[in-house]
This record gives sequence, C-alpha cells and structure tokens, in this order.
Amino acid sequence: MKVSADVRAMIERRKKNYTLEAPFYTSEAIFALDMEAIFRQHWIQVAVEPDVPEPGDYITVEIGLDSILIVRDDDMQVRAFHNVCRHRGARLCNHDKGSLGNIVCPYHSWTYNLNGDLMFAEHMGEQFDRCKHSLKAVHVENLAGLIFICLAEQPPADFAVMRAAMEPYLQPHDLAGCKIAAQIDIVEEGNWKLTMENNRECYHCVANHPELTISLYEYGFGYQRTPANEEGMAAFDETVARRTAQWEAMQLPSAEIDRLADLVTGFRTQRLPLDRDGESQTLDAKIASKKLLGGFEQADLGGLSFWTQPNSWHHFMSDHIVTFSAIPLSAGKTLVRTKWLVHKDAREGIDYDVDNLTAVWRATNDQDRTLVEYSQRGATSSAYEPGPYSPFTEGLVEKFCEWYIGRLAAYGDAPQTDDAGADAPVSHGEKVVSFMR
Amino acid sequence: MKVSADVRAMIERRKKNYTLEAPFYTSEAIFALDMEAIFRQHWIQVAVEPDVPEPGDYITVEIGLDSILIVRDDDMQVRAFHNVCRHRGARLCNHDKGSLGNIVCPYHSWTYNLNGDLMFAEHMGEQFDRCKHSLKAVHVENLAGLIFICLAEQPPADFAVMRAAMEPYLQPHDLAGCKIAAQIDIVEEGNWKLTMENNRECYHCVANHPELTISLYEYGFGYQRTPANEEGMAAFDETVARRTAQWEAMQLPSAEIDRLADLVTGFRTQRLPLDRDGESQTLDAKIASKKLLGGFEQADLGGLSFWTQPNSWHHFMSDHIVTFSAIPLSAGKTLVRTKWLVHKDAREGIDYDVDNLTAVWRATNDQDRTLVEYSQRGATSSAYEPGPYSPFTEGLVEKFCEWYIGRLAAYGDAPQTDDAGADAPVSHGEKVVSFMR
Amino acid sequence: MKVSADVRAMIERRKKNYTLEAPFYTSEAIFALDMEAIFRQHWIQVAVEPDVPEPGDYITVEIGLDSILIVRDDDMQVRAFHNVCRHRGARLCNHDKGSLGNIVCPYHSWTYNLNGDLMFAEHMGEQFDRCKHSLKAVHVENLAGLIFICLAEQPPADFAVMRAAMEPYLQPHDLAGCKIAAQIDIVEEGNWKLTMENNRECYHCVANHPELTISLYEYGFGYQRTPANEEGMAAFDETVARRTAQWEAMQLPSAEIDRLADLVTGFRTQRLPLDRDGESQTLDAKIASKKLLGGFEQADLGGLSFWTQPNSWHHFMSDHIVTFSAIPLSAGKTLVRTKWLVHKDAREGIDYDVDNLTAVWRATNDQDRTLVEYSQRGATSSAYEPGPYSPFTEGLVEKFCEWYIGRLAAYGDAPQTDDAGADAPVSHGEKVVSFMR
Repeated sequence: MKVSADVRAMIERRKKNYTLEAPFYTSEAIFALDMEAIFRQHWIQVAVEPDVPEPGDYITVEIGLDSILIVRDDDMQVRAFHNVCRHRGARLCNHDKGSLGNIVCPYHSWTYNLNGDLMFAEHMGEQFDRCKHSLKAVHVENLAGLIFICLAEQPPADFAVMRAAMEPYLQPHDLAGCKIAAQIDIVEEGNWKLTMENNRECYHCVANHPELTISLYEYGFGYQRTPANEEGMAAFDETVARRTAQWEAMQLPSAEIDRLADLVTGFRTQRLPLDRDGESQTLDAKIASKKLLGGFEQADLGGLSFWTQPNSWHHFMSDHIVTFSAIPLSAGKTLVRTKWLVHKDAREGIDYDVDNLTAVWRATNDQDRTLVEYSQRGATSSAYEPGPYSPFTEGLVEKFCEWYIGRLAAYGDAPQTDDAGADAPVSHGEKVVSFMR
Repeated sequence: MKVSADVRAMIERRKKNYTLEAPFYTSEAIFALDMEAIFRQHWIQVAVEPDVPEPGDYITVEIGLDSILIVRDDDMQVRAFHNVCRHRGARLCNHDKGSLGNIVCPYHSWTYNLNGDLMFAEHMGEQFDRCKHSLKAVHVENLAGLIFICLAEQPPADFAVMRAAMEPYLQPHDLAGCKIAAQIDIVEEGNWKLTMENNRECYHCVANHPELTISLYEYGFGYQRTPANEEGMAAFDETVARRTAQWEAMQLPSAEIDRLADLVTGFRTQRLPLDRDGESQTLDAKIASKKLLGGFEQADLGGLSFWTQPNSWHHFMSDHIVTFSAIPLSAGKTLVRTKWLVHKDAREGIDYDVDNLTAVWRATNDQDRTLVEYSQRGATSSAYEPGPYSPFTEGLVEKFCEWYIGRLAAYGDAPQTDDAGADAPVSHGEKVVSFMR
Repeated sequence: MKVSADVRAMIERRKKNYTLEAPFYTSEAIFALDMEAIFRQHWIQVAVEPDVPEPGDYITVEIGLDSILIVRDDDMQVRAFHNVCRHRGARLCNHDKGSLGNIVCPYHSWTYNLNGDLMFAEHMGEQFDRCKHSLKAVHVENLAGLIFICLAEQPPADFAVMRAAMEPYLQPHDLAGCKIAAQIDIVEEGNWKLTMENNRECYHCVANHPELTISLYEYGFGYQRTPANEEGMAAFDETVARRTAQWEAMQLPSAEIDRLADLVTGFRTQRLPLDRDGESQTLDAKIASKKLLGGFEQADLGGLSFWTQPNSWHHFMSDHIVTFSAIPLSAGKTLVRTKWLVHKDAREGIDYDVDNLTAVWRATNDQDRTLVEYSQRGATSSAYEPGPYSPFTEGLVEKFCEWYIGRLAAYGDAPQTDDAGADAPVSHGEKVVSFMR
C-alpha cells in the first residue's frame, strides 16, 4: 500500500505533545493504512494460553478481513494459521472456539492436520500435489502465556527484547496455569487510537472511574510531579519505593521499564501498590479469587501492569489477571476484548464469584467506551483541531502517538515491493486516495 | 473542496424547468459538495428561541459531522459554539438539550463559561495559555424568534435584507413568547433537495393530502392561471385580495414577497386565507389553542407562510406556529424536524390538545415522506432522466433549483483557498472524484 | 463504464481451472462492473408467466438500482418497463406485485396505459407533448413460460438459439399452465458468482445435502469418470442411457445439451433419472402434487434441469417445477429467489402440501447459503489465493468462470461510447478505480 503525499505530509508535520490531526481518527483510508502498516507489521496480542488448554482446542481471531485460527497441536505447541481452505477458499472454522482432531473444510471436506498439512482431498486426481496446498502459517509468540501473532512475512525481531525483559515479571503469575473465568467483548464507536490514548493516561480517572479508583492510584499511570500535586506524589513515590523493595526481595521484579517509544515492539511495565486493602483491582481491593496464582502465598502483591504497542494492556495480580486486546474494526469502531483469568483449580461460586471478579473492569470499560465515543464524535467535527496534552499527566499518550507516527513514517519509507510491477498480486480494496478537499 | 469538471459541466448544462440530473440526488460526492457549498456557506434555520428559554438552556444541533451547541447566555443572548473541547476534542454536550451553568467537558473536566471562554483546565502547567483555547463560535441570527446559524467564516450579508422584510410579518405572532408544544423528527429516505422540491409545490396536494387540504387552498402555493383552472383561481385571487386588504388594515403585513431566486439568502412569504372556518391548519380549520398568540384578538388571520433557502418553511397562524427544518444526513437521507409552538401560557389539555394541534402536519409530513422516497428510488434508476416541471404549478420548484444551481456555480467560481498549498488544513473526507463511468 | 488496467490484467491472467482472484468476489468496483457488463448486457431470468396470469397483473423486479415493471397487457403479452415516471422520476409501482388498469404515478397522477403510453398529465399546458413521455420499455423474452429481460439496447441475438433448443424440452411441462405455490427469497452474504459456482457442482452434495441426495444422484451434475468412481459412474451412465431412450420415445427430449461456455446466452440442459421412487425432488422421491403437469400421465419422468448464464437454474418434474434466479445486491450479497410451481388446478391441502413441496429445496438452499457465506469470508482474507478445481467434479464451475471472464473481456474490448464526450450522460456512481494497493 502506497502512502499518499498528503498522508506523508500529515505524518511529517505532526506537532509533538498535541493530539493527532482528525483524519487519523476518522478516515477510512487511514484506517486501511493502519491495518496494513501497524496491524499487519507488528506483534498483536490476541489470545492467552488458556484459550486453548488441550491439543485440538482452537479459537479464531479476526484482524481486519483476516481470520486466524489459533490451535494447540498434539505436541502442546500453540500454532496459528490463516483460516482459509486452499481449495475454494472457504473459511474452515466458523465458530469463535472449539475443539477438533483434524481441520476439515465444510465445503468439500479437504482435511488438514494440526500442523496445517493437507492430508486428504477427494476427486483431485493423480496430478494433484497435496504438499503445495498446506494451510498458510502465521507467526506466533507465546510470552509467559500471552499469545501474540504477526501477519508480516518478517516479524519485528525485537520481540526477543520484550521477552527477555518481561518473562521474569510475568512468569511468577503463571498465566499458563490459569483458566478464563470470563470474557467480554465490547465494541467502541471510536477509532482504535482513541481507545489506546484513553488507556495511556489516568488524568480522566478521578472524574470518570469511581470503581477503578477504589484500588488504583492515578499517580502511577504516567503522572509527573508539579507544584500542584507535590504532596500527594511525594507520598505515593515513597510508597512505591518501599513496596518495590519488598517485592523485589520476594523475587518479584517490579521496577518500571519503559520502552514504549524506542522499540518497534514497544512496551512498558511496572508493579504498583494498590489502595485500601491493597490486594486486587476489585470493589473492596481484596482478592476476588481465594486460590492464589502460581506459587503465591501472599495476597498484597499490588498490580503488575504491562502495556504493549499497538494494542494491548494487562493487569497481573496475586489472585487474577485481566487482559485487554483492542482490534480495530473500522475507522470509527474498535473491538475491546477483556479476559479475566483465575487459577485453573479455582472453583466458581466457591473460590470466586464472576460478578465480583469482573465488576471493576466491566464498569471501567463501559465508562471508557463512552469517553472514546465522545472523542470520536468530536474528531469528526470541522472545528476539531489538535489540542495540547498535559505535560504532567499525558506523557504516555504522547509516547503512544510518537510510536504510531514513527511506525507509519518507517512504513512509508520502506520500499513497497507489492506495487512494483504488472505481476503484483492484486488487493481487494481500493487504493489509498488523497485526503485533500 | 474542488468542484470537479464533470460536476461543473452538469451545473452548466442544467436545463431550466426540468428536474435535476440524477447525481444531484444520488451521489455521495455531490452530497459532500452540498454540505460544503450550501450548508456551510448559507444561513441555516435550525432552532427557535423557545428551544432555550432560560440562561444556561442549550440544545445541540447536528449539521453534517458538526455538532453545534446553541445556548442562551446570562445576558439572554442566544449564542452558538462548536460542541468540541479544545483539549482532546471530545464532544462536550452529548444530549439533545439540557441546562447548565458552565460547559464542562466530560473527559478531563475542562470548563468553559457560557461565552465560550476556558475558565479551568487542570494539570496544564504555567506555560499554558487558556485564552487561546476558547470554544469556537458559530455565527447566529435571531429573526423574530427563528434561529439561523451560518458555519462560514463570512456569512452572506443579505440576511439583513430578509430581516428588514420579514420582521414586520413575523413579530406580531410573537414567537419568542411561545413554548414548544411538540417536536417530531422524521427521517426521509431521500435527498434533501427532493424534500425541498416537494415543499415548493402543491400540484401533489389534492391526490395526497386529505388532511392538509381541509384548510389549505392549493392555489396559493405557486399556481398560475391556466384556461383549465380559470374559474377557481379567479375566485381565489378575489378572496386573497379582500382578505389581504383586511389584514393589512390590522397592521398585519400580508402581501407576497418573493426573493427565492434573486438573493443569496433567498426567501418568500405570503399570508393566505384558509378554507372552511378559516382559522388554522387543523382538521376542522378552527384554532387548536385557545390562547391566541401575541396581542391577537381575532382567530381568522389565515396562514402566514415563510419559506427560506435552502432548508426551511414555516406557517404562522393566530393560535400556533409550525416550523420545519430540513437537514441532509446523506445523499439519500434527510432529517425533517417539525416544531409546533403555542402561547407560553397556554395549558396543555385545557387550552390545547397535542394530538389535535399536530394532526394535520403529522399526516402531511408522513405523506410527503412517502412521495420523497418514491422520487429517490426513481432517481437511482438508469432510466431516470430530467422531466419537465409544470409551468402552471411548479414554478417555485424551479426557483429552488435555479437558486441551488446558482449557488453551486458561485461556489465553484470562488477561489478555493483551502486547497492552495502544502500547509493547507487537511479534511477528513475523501476529495470529490469524477462522476463519469 | 471503463475497465481499468488492473482489472483487464486480472482478466487476462486468469488461470484456467482455478478459482477467480479475490477482487472478483469482494470488490465493490468489480461488482459495479458485473452489474454493467454482465447484468445489463445479457438475458436475465427474473420471472415466470404465472407471476402475471391476468391482464393488468404486474410484478416489480429490482436489478441493481433499476426497478423493472413486468406487466401483462390487455392482449395477454408480457411487457417490461422501467418503473419510473417521466415527470419527476418517482417510482410508479411500489409493491412487489399487484393488479392495475392503468399505471398511475402516486405523486402527480400522471397516467400511463399498459403499453406504456402517457394518457394523462394535468397542468402541463398546450406545449407539452405526451408522446415524448412514454414509459421506457425493457426487452423481454418468454421461453416456454420463463421470463427473461435484457437491459441492453441491443440484446444478445443468440437467445433464439437457446429458444430453438429448449422449447421442445420445456413445453411438455406447460409452465404457463402452472400457478406459483410458494416463493421464498433468501439473501446470501456472498458474491453472486460464489452462488453460481456452488450451483454448478455436486462435489459438495454428499457432505452437505442430506435431503437433496435422497432423490438426486450427484453423478449427473458434471462428474467425469475416474478410477476412483469407475463402478458407480458406469452403473449411473447405464441408467441414464436406458431412461433417456424411454423418455425420448415418449416425445420428451432428454439428452444433454451443453452450450454453457460457447454462447453469449449460455445454457445447459439434461433430463436425469432420480433415485428411490424416482418421481420428484422430494423427501420420499415421490410426486408432491397429485395433479401432473401438462398432459403427463406418468410420474417417473426424472428431473429436467436447465441452467442459464449468468443467473438461473431450474428443475422441471412431472408434478412440479422449481425455478431459481440469483440477483446480485452488492459485492458480498446476493438474492436467491426460488419459486415452486404446480398445475394451476391443483388444490392446496388436497393435491399438494406446501411444506412437503418445498422441503428439499428450502433445506438445500439454506445449506448452500452457508457454504457460499463461508466462501465469501474466505475470499476476503489476505491469505486467499485461487485454488484448483477438481478436473473430475468441477468442470461446470470452470465453464461458468470461463464464460464470465470471456464476457468481461468482450465488454472491455467493445468501444465504450458512453464515455466518449462532454455530452455523455453522467452516471450516479463513482468510476471504477484501480485495485492496486
């Protein structure tokens, strides 16, 4: 996909510490560019190991017009394939999840094994070469139970950097030893970047999130000291320092790592104390599941947050994990998929109650959806113009924008071999056109 | 927005006294041009004073992708602002109407007063200049209680001509002293120009509007004398002349003024007698509200009609007022907003009954919606070609088309400074492309 | 409409015996081309004589944005007109079917007779020439009761070839002497070519159509002998030969004619034996209506199938007829209209039961809809690439594709006079743009 001159101009003139120009939020053509330059070129968090606990278990995930089949093979490896039959192109698995022995196309019964090899195809004759008709594989990485896929031919190599940094933080929570207690999909009527920008600051928290701020200190989410908040921040920083020292002494890495803007596979993490009873992100700040994760024996481990570019954020606590994955659906529509995980041996109704487990983030997601939708409606206005980010509370939003604009610029600069010649494969969509009036 | 060569060609070759070529009704690109060249450049009737009776009362109005906040300030002036926060661009007021002290953004609580000044913005630091972040104002005019807005930087100056002509006609009905007894929005699945063309003739009335023609003579709505209607028209003209003389003697200006086609801010007015009991546009042609408007002591004052280009028409009677505002939603979809107003002291259920008050125009609007939709479906056909207007009954339709085509031509001829250089602001939409196959 | 360079390139490089490239199934621009080059240039089966049994009976049919009025005139001829008033362009008949004396426009009562002549138009004055405002006629052909229309100015002349071949096959079933016992419209969320490709093979039948394969041998629908099916095919061929000889001795032409790929008006026919009781395509393979068609005295006449390019297929049995007409609605949406016909004197509830009559094809259509939708979803994937057709079971699918690609190529090669000059009529849509990323 070619980046048009006016989009390049918008990329180049992007004003630091200001929101993006409106077409980045509203244009379907830039949406198409985002899907190509961001969502097909980067590592996208889409699933967790407990989505496919047993061999043959699968889920399907849709990214743009692509359906991806994520399946656990007989060797317990998580694999990903394009969910498309090599015969007439039918979608193979037409449910969100399930379990299967082989992958059998519903149309003419072409049959693939869990490695994607075509095992059987009737009526095709002697000349037919089964080996040339395997399922197309998709790159997949499993980071301590978080499943990332990449649709590019050459995925970004620096996933290894994120893995090396993050595994020590995440592994103690033993995500692979969890089960999904609840999953809720919501569709926000807003651009995915507004979803992400909303996620990257807590300036809006006090006025909008009464349930979340029971346990969460907004200070920990990108705040800088100012004369106005001097006192509160100092007390908070002291608490963080003290708790961090305690946790690290327990072999729980907790200090902030911020690689949001300098890596292709950008990420950030920090373990932060929680308020009140300090155990979990719940309505009473106590644990929601009696069966603690991994080998934990102590409940008040705060909240280990993990943010990735371009599309995910996660909170790991002593008793449960909440994962969030945002998937763009159109310029003005975004899927936010939230999963709540507890120890796989925790018993519903006895060790945990789903309503209690999910209460805070159900409410918070719904509040954020409303804010994202207000932002989207405003961005479509002719009166919209980029506005200033707070230097003291919206620094991580700026890092998201910086990363995004940088990735678009890098994509625009790369040679676009797709378009080179007459033999080029033909895409289904219309090309990116100009945005000038 | 640039007017493409083929649209210019269609403008130039428009055949007088014939319907427009199909793309004017069906093309989304011409819809975008209409929104820019007509609805952003002219005075658009969108509200009435009684929408915002008290300081702090507001309504929001959507024109295209713009949301406009119409608010009465503490000095009782009606003001209009773009409903967009200057911080992250969130829509400020997310309800159709309400009342407020200050305008507080729901996202991060930026707070504006009713003059649009930014009064408060947390976390922005010392460097931040609040004065540069006021709400963006929109031009507003109040014509005897009818509220018009204009989104252009330089609104058409001849609003003053319309005001000078119309105030004497409208003021006796004291719209500002009314209250809204009912408001009904309908969405017609047709182009806004089909809505307007339908409004500008009564050739279709007898066959389609049994309720309306109880009180209304179709002759008064653009009919010319022909041999076929000689007798009826002569009798009608005699009645009009006699009644006009009576009304004018009562200081009620009543004679026809027709500036539909020669002004940028085109309009037409006439006070016309009503049939049967002759008092009001109701099912029995009697007044629907016992409390007469303004200082009126007499019920049979006929119907004072007021039409404006591009989007409104109104009927002022002795006991109530009906206002109609058409707002395009897409090439094939138009909002028609109807408000019924009675004296603010009239008591519902005692002085007036809402069902009776609204019966005629509820039925008539619904009938017109159906006709507009039949027209839209026909215009999408490959067999559609411009058809001839009746020279005797569709002269005002022709004047609407003439005005419209003239305004598009003027827009196309004006220098389009928006597109001048690389630093030009970038719009959200795709540019107008060609219409040739 | 101009065929863009990249679409021409796709047409030229189409690989025989492989499914089409994805944009042929997914692009709205190619959909527009299909509507123009295929559905406006060829004979489209849209109705049956029993849709309009009496003078004044009409149905309306929509093809793309065109509404076509099919009406029986006072001389019992079936006529077709564009359903558009020549005055303001309103759609004249706004119901699926009905009966009328004259055609009266609902807007201003312009009145046409059943020949399309404008008989009456009020207020138009002396200068107005009624003769220049007749309804626009559409070409129509009646093939033994099957109604085809063509929107081209010059329809393909080889309809006569199909008529000469098919009348002897079809007439004994006396479609004109039938009545419509049931009609069901379904909308498939897939491209119309996927609907047609699905119709042109029975490779998918055994795994998907338990009801249909009660009576139907899949062998008869495009199967070639292979070592693998040698035995079954030999037995089937023997049965076909024996039954064909019997039927032809009864003056029922039955042998295969295949002109799918070599004619502009491509078609194929064959009378095939049915399994079990061998009488009809029902759940017990017995007749569904006791009153046999035409002059038939024998029930086991097999199934006479008739396929046409681009959009229809039909099964004629001794007791009933099922007709299928596919009409594209968008790149990803297709209307499939099925009609079940029985002898006009057959009595519902006595001679036939509608549930029993329609059971097989209701189930089968629904199964095929699902398969088409799986295919459409797959074709939108970036991983989709043309896959190989079975040389033994998908030969008729290849013929459909071959015909389709050939017709597009012929359209692209023809001089496109529409676009020639500045006076050209202007279409409503945007032009076909490039498909390159």
